[in-house]
Amino acid sequence: MILKGNFIWMPAMDRLEVRENAWLVTSGETVVGIYDQLPPEYAGQPVEDWSGKVIIPAFNDLHIHAPQFLNRGIGYDTRLLDWLDTYTFPLEARFRDLDFARRAWKVFLNRLWAAGTMRFSAFATIHKEAAWALMELTEQSGLRGLVGKVNMDRNSADNLREETAVSLADTEELICRSRAELKHVGFILTPRFVPSTTGALMDGLGQLGERYDLPVQSHLSENPSEVEWVRQLHPDIPTYTQVYENFGLLRKDKTIMAHAIYLSDGEKELLREKGVTLAHCPCSNVNLSSGVMPLRRNLEEGLRCCVASDVAGGHTAAMNRSVAAATALSKVNWLSHPEEAHLTLTESFYLATRGSGAFLGQVGSFEPGFQFDALVLSPADPAEDLLERTPVERLEQFLCDGDDRDIAARYCGGVLVKKPFATME
Amino acid sequence: MILKGNFIWMPAMDRLEVRENAWLVTSGETVVGIYDQLPPEYAGQPVEDWSGKVIIPAFNDLHIHAPQFLNRGIGYDTRLLDWLDTYTFPLEARFRDLDFARRAWKVFLNRLWAAGTMRFSAFATIHKEAAWALMELTEQSGLRGLVGKVNMDRNSADNLREETAVSLADTEELICRSRAELKHVGFILTPRFVPSTTGALMDGLGQLGERYDLPVQSHLSENPSEVEWVRQLHPDIPTYTQVYENFGLLRKDKTIMAHAIYLSDGEKELLREKGVTLAHCPCSNVNLSSGVMPLRRNLEEGLRCCVASDVAGGHTAAMNRSVAAATALSKVNWLSHPEEAHLTLTESFYLATRGSGAFLGQVGSFEPGFQFDALVLSPADPAEDLLERTPVERLEQFLCDGDDRDIAARYCGGVLVKKPFATME
Repeated sequence: MILKGNFIWMPAMDRLEVRENAWLVTSGETVVGIYDQLPPEYAGQPVEDWSGKVIIPAFNDLHIHAPQFLNRGIGYDTRLLDWLDTYTFPLEARFRDLDFARRAWKVFLNRLWAAGTMRFSAFATIHKEAAWALMELTEQSGLRGLVGKVNMDRNSADNLREETAVSLADTEELICRSRAELKHVGFILTPRFVPSTTGALMDGLGQLGERYDLPVQSHLSENPSEVEWVRQLHPDIPTYTQVYENFGLLRKDKTIMAHAIYLSDGEKELLREKGVTLAHCPCSNVNLSSGVMPLRRNLEEGLRCCVASDVAGGHTAAMNRSVAAATALSKVNWLSHPEEAHLTLTESFYLATRGSGAFLGQVGSFEPGFQFDALVLSPADPAEDLLERTPVERLEQFLCDGDDRDIAARYCGGVLVKKPFATME
Repeated sequence: MILKGNFIWMPAMDRLEVRENAWLVTSGETVVGIYDQLPPEYAGQPVEDWSGKVIIPAFNDLHIHAPQFLNRGIGYDTRLLDWLDTYTFPLEARFRDLDFARRAWKVFLNRLWAAGTMRFSAFATIHKEAAWALMELTEQSGLRGLVGKVNMDRNSADNLREETAVSLADTEELICRSRAELKHVGFILTPRFVPSTTGALMDGLGQLGERYDLPVQSHLSENPSEVEWVRQLHPDIPTYTQVYENFGLLRKDKTIMAHAIYLSDGEKELLREKGVTLAHCPCSNVNLSSGVMPLRRNLEEGLRCCVASDVAGGHTAAMNRSVAAATALSKVNWLSHPEEAHLTLTESFYLATRGSGAFLGQVGSFEPGFQFDALVLSPADPAEDLLERTPVERLEQFLCDGDDRDIAARYCGGVLVKKPFATME
């Protein structure tokens, strides 16, 4: 495939590359290179001509709750634990109904597609069949990523509490089934968080992780009451992070922990050592008054961080808005901590493309060998477009005030992806 | 006019009224009442039937820069004074070209209409003809509000610096012209801010204010460097607020000051005494790293406050997003100032409807006698709407993640308002 346009990508957090009127060549799923002049060997081949448009890497969202998409925006004048009980758990319990689940997953996948998230790591619910349906529908959609059946066997409402053995058996079944049947969607171990999972369950999941060499995703230190609860549940283990480690759930270079706001130096050391990716969720952390992760400081201290939506603690699946929110929250943090420089908009953009893509492979950039995942930006209403703009200005405007109407095309794994599901089906 | 639907409005910041399956009756421009049963005298009359839809007061935006709309989202990794010089002033200088200005105003008014802002107080530019065009086009659009020609006669680039006498004469001409020719759009005195206006100009504007009994809008204490600059420019006047007061620009109950982040107790006393409305602009204050206005404290101390967009310091004209941003910023502030309770989403909603409407008359509520300005909310894609929702949940979802596609109809002054301008004309 050969594309023409104005390409923007970031090989590093402090390096923004812009190539105007350039050609990008792909081979199969991946980028071959970007050229100012089309190399002669490609002459005469068909070109997807996006001249004048800006083409950027698609978004990768490493922390999103698929069932909660329907609850976005609702009930935020509460705190985490109340919000879970009042809004989140009753909704998740409904996914026992597979028909409802399938309809909800289609709405979810359509919206991710629209907003330009081509890859993600999602929490489903505890329900095996619903989780499997999300995996299958994702495979059908043309999007890619990781999906986990949630595990919960304590401190949960009756309709969301599993038997430990059943939870483990269901998980193992999905691991095997997805390996056998799916190509672009993988299974990720998904203990909800320490308060919802007994030691026996976490231990069993750790063993599954070892046996099948699986990635893991969970929540860590989002809210002070939650941190205190974990301390009470595991008085013999010094920190929240160490609980996961003790049960084999900090799998080296394969673990995503969402939030990670309240960390001791010892926890940071352990997270660094294990190569854990911290999913910073600015919208959620503000909506639920959870706290402010010291993002710049964590990055400078060598922690792996990315920007994620955390729908529905986050109110929007549109990652451009999470990018802008990460920058905004970092600026508010700078106002009271002037020693910690705020992130720029493009630095946050990096953390939602190449930064998050790194967990999924060679993803999130236009460097040679990377998966070709891209969004073509084009102002929804050309008549409103009265000024000449540089490609970077167009990117800024899209990140701050754009929406799905400003995305003209989406590519994932070297392929143009169309809207996955007719909404009325 | 008789409308049927689920009405939500806020007679006070702590009072949310919800009436489901109710009838609202208007007479001319204003609300007569809301009834659970349609009173017999209206039987048989045509009804605008929005059954099942949520109907809310339209937004009023008391601080927005019309020319800067084209710059939304651009250049935010700078601070106020650099941002003005680099991005804002070069764009505003282009409005000398009346043809360009008219096209830009149409884009601006279309977007306000789309986003549900039915009334506003806008800065135009220094250019008399462009400012007049904005007034005329606003009148044509069906939207209502106040428009000011900006005054600037010092510390400005050559192409944005006026002669003092010319600035005053142009202003007076527009005052008279708008009074003679316009019905729903008024003139508001608009000195840019103290650094851009000499004492002579401010004094002349103060006199015009007195002569024509005009409202005033300007900026106050947005950024520490700006505050320091004002102190250097007026070393003999103790505070920034007092500078405006000394030149007659804090007109009793008729003044909007945007931002007002860094205020002394004495300034607050003066602002309270003069009944000044403080336009809190959360998006802008975060984008430009300006600071955090202590909104709850200011309200408790009896200052009049509202929520405004401040496009293009703010990145969006959509007031639902400024409402959500005001709540979010208040929550971040609460995290470091737990003694200052954060605003709830509906409290912020009040500040963008009835709170801001109070400056413009009986506006922003469905109480009897109020102007009937309303938005009919309806999810853009009914197929995505899988759950039963209360009207308040629908309002929350719209405020946090809605956009113009979720607004099915807009009313202003008792009249259905259609899209003002064909975009390609």
